[in-house]
Amino acid sequence: MPKINAERLLADMRKLRTFGAMDTGVVRPALSEEDVKSRHWLKERYEDAGLDASIDGVANVFGRSRNDGPALIIGSHSDTQPRGGWLDGALGVIYGLEIARACAEETDTAHLAVDAVSWQDEESNFIGCLGSRSWCGTLDPAAEAAAVGRDGTPLADALRTAGLEGVPRQTIEDGRYIGYLEAHIEQGAYLEDASEQIGVVTAIVGIRGMTISFEGEQNHAGTTTMARRRDAASALFEVAHRINEEFPKIADERTVWTIGQANIEPGASSIIPGHAEMALQFRDQDEGKLDAFEEIVGGLVAEINRRGKIEATAKRARTPIRPSKMDENFQEHIARSAESFAPRQWRRMPSAAGHDPMVIHEKLPCAMLFIPSIKGISHAFGEDSHDSDIVAGCQVLADAAASILKDARGET
Amino acid sequence: MPKINAERLLADMRKLRTFGAMDTGVVRPALSEEDVKSRHWLKERYEDAGLDASIDGVANVFGRSRNDGPALIIGSHSDTQPRGGWLDGALGVIYGLEIARACAEETDTAHLAVDAVSWQDEESNFIGCLGSRSWCGTLDPAAEAAAVGRDGTPLADALRTAGLEGVPRQTIEDGRYIGYLEAHIEQGAYLEDASEQIGVVTAIVGIRGMTISFEGEQNHAGTTTMARRRDAASALFEVAHRINEEFPKIADERTVWTIGQANIEPGASSIIPGHAEMALQFRDQDEGKLDAFEEIVGGLVAEINRRGKIEATAKRARTPIRPSKMDENFQEHIARSAESFAPRQWRRMPSAAGHDPMVIHEKLPCAMLFIPSIKGISHAFGEDSHDSDIVAGCQVLADAAASILKDARGET
Repeated sequence: MPKINAERLLADMRKLRTFGAMDTGVVRPALSEEDVKSRHWLKERYEDAGLDASIDGVANVFGRSRNDGPALIIGSHSDTQPRGGWLDGALGVIYGLEIARACAEETDTAHLAVDAVSWQDEESNFIGCLGSRSWCGTLDPAAEAAAVGRDGTPLADALRTAGLEGVPRQTIEDGRYIGYLEAHIEQGAYLEDASEQIGVVTAIVGIRGMTISFEGEQNHAGTTTMARRRDAASALFEVAHRINEEFPKIADERTVWTIGQANIEPGASSIIPGHAEMALQFRDQDEGKLDAFEEIVGGLVAEINRRGKIEATAKRARTPIRPSKMDENFQEHIARSAESFAPRQWRRMPSAAGHDPMVIHEKLPCAMLFIPSIKGISHAFGEDSHDSDIVAGCQVLADAAASILKDARGET
Repeated sequence: MPKINAERLLADMRKLRTFGAMDTGVVRPALSEEDVKSRHWLKERYEDAGLDASIDGVANVFGRSRNDGPALIIGSHSDTQPRGGWLDGALGVIYGLEIARACAEETDTAHLAVDAVSWQDEESNFIGCLGSRSWCGTLDPAAEAAAVGRDGTPLADALRTAGLEGVPRQTIEDGRYIGYLEAHIEQGAYLEDASEQIGVVTAIVGIRGMTISFEGEQNHAGTTTMARRRDAASALFEVAHRINEEFPKIADERTVWTIGQANIEPGASSIIPGHAEMALQFRDQDEGKLDAFEEIVGGLVAEINRRGKIEATAKRARTPIRPSKMDENFQEHIARSAESFAPRQWRRMPSAAGHDPMVIHEKLPCAMLFIPSIKGISHAFGEDSHDSDIVAGCQVLADAAASILKDARGET
């Protein structure tokens, strides 16, 4: 079985962190100068590891094993949030590199085909999961044509600046892959709270968003009696509060919902609001539960409308993201490996955040491994994990990858 | 008894409307060029009426009767909201002019002392009720020094531009006045709904404002479980909705409360809000009720704090405005006059909006008369009243003014 090199792993992670470093965090959004530099650095690391390295037309970086399949591709994304942590994405990318190296170094595993990858723009500077969508052939050309970065640069211009105009885009090579593996920090605190070291991801939760709007009548806050009012904000407050009362009745301990935006117009202390609007988002691994939440919202909105004063509407605010089941066989290999390196200090758990496997699992079996996040902090400069957890996670995934590949080759 | 001249009254109102006319509304904020022009026009009308006319150092326009007291001063303000209606303020100003003229024309009332006035800046371009505060000697010098108009001009500069630098400011003349009368459009729809023509104002309601803030913890909307969350917005929604459930238990049909502002930060659909804040305002003619509302808010905030997740605070957002009782004797005179000109088509009612008598009643007995607003519209270009109501209101107030003055002189 492969034995990962902890010092080499940590050194490469710290080196990647220097691209776009700011305070304790990293500012390396997709196709920024620092992102492009870091991808050329990664390509060199893949070459040093004996992989066939390339950067494709959307700046995915591939390190292809010279071994024949069945192959696994292992990685994550190395772009960051506008003000991101140093591990989100980077951890899984360097794991892929290190696992490819570790397998190549061991006689027992040197014949296995382990490809490494860094996807582009998982964090939605231009298009969320741009790189994995391109690789899977599911990137919508119209969305791509309309894509503009947070700083206003069109995607095509950013790719040209990165020297990628006309560079071919790679897609899944027919017959080569048996699946994709990705490691990630948990971004929550379940593992830390339970003093556990490894999470074996069962599914990535589905996400739905709704915009709930209320139309009333703007009026004078002194001279308009309560009986005459058509106060859009009061209806919003009622629906928001009742969502928080009703959802728990069908939620389980993993279900989450958030009202993260609310706007009241015109927004003056002496004027009765004529318009109000809020954004509701909810996540669960069970589609039935997501449907039930939409029904609750529909019921509350209908109740407001029946009263005849406020016109309320609820509509889906984003394309629903369906729950993504992780491959059961892969999970089983990762679980066995976790039990051998961290006995009784691991658990199966869903991912509450989105990741490239949401895109890739439509084409290939996928699995994910989590390591603990200190205090659950993520998408912030304070994001961190203990070195011991970083090393353990990589060893567990390396072991699982080798075991999956041997199994596929009938060598076990 | 005085007989008002309906054509002259309406002609002067329409002329005043031309200063700053825009669409069906008027843009004539305090000390704007149009406001200053209109005040010089008004001063000439006062002169034509045989009054001693003057513009004082804050641009109040006075038309002083040459008769000795006991005197009434009758008027309102001729400045407007940034985009105001044509009657708010203007109605009461032209009533003062017309009542002075009508009294002077009638043998029976020509000896009565009726002064007319247009106060400056009731509508808070620089300082709300600037003119009446100055006349009452209650204008705070520090507030005046800091006063800046909506367009950024300091008050002192605006007064200089209006040619008023160094012009004396008039204050209440000792021993002359027995009180102040003001007519106004209702700005609500009680009178119209009841097909009534005259409102005899009992009090101007008190107003209190509170800012209610919630401090929680900003976090990831996917990976942070509901149990771990400290969601500031959810606490706001609960308190807002429960205010709307609790306040009606002690409110009467005239009590009003409004949550006109609510802000949630950072305001992104995938981020749990760490901070939320809302503005609550409530109005009633009974101070005890205003106290009780503050206690309800305090109780709701304390309940949130007891749960230990969100830190909630409620503080007064503005200097409380105490209810202003109108003079009972004056009310009685107006009521008798209303009953004689509009039998059974009048009522006693509080004013839910603020007016200069809030300031003046601390120094002199005050009374107010309302006429119906079409559809209750006010502080908007659509503000209007029927000519028949405008005329009737002026006749009722003229009659009441003469009757109050005769009573004071022992002539009845």
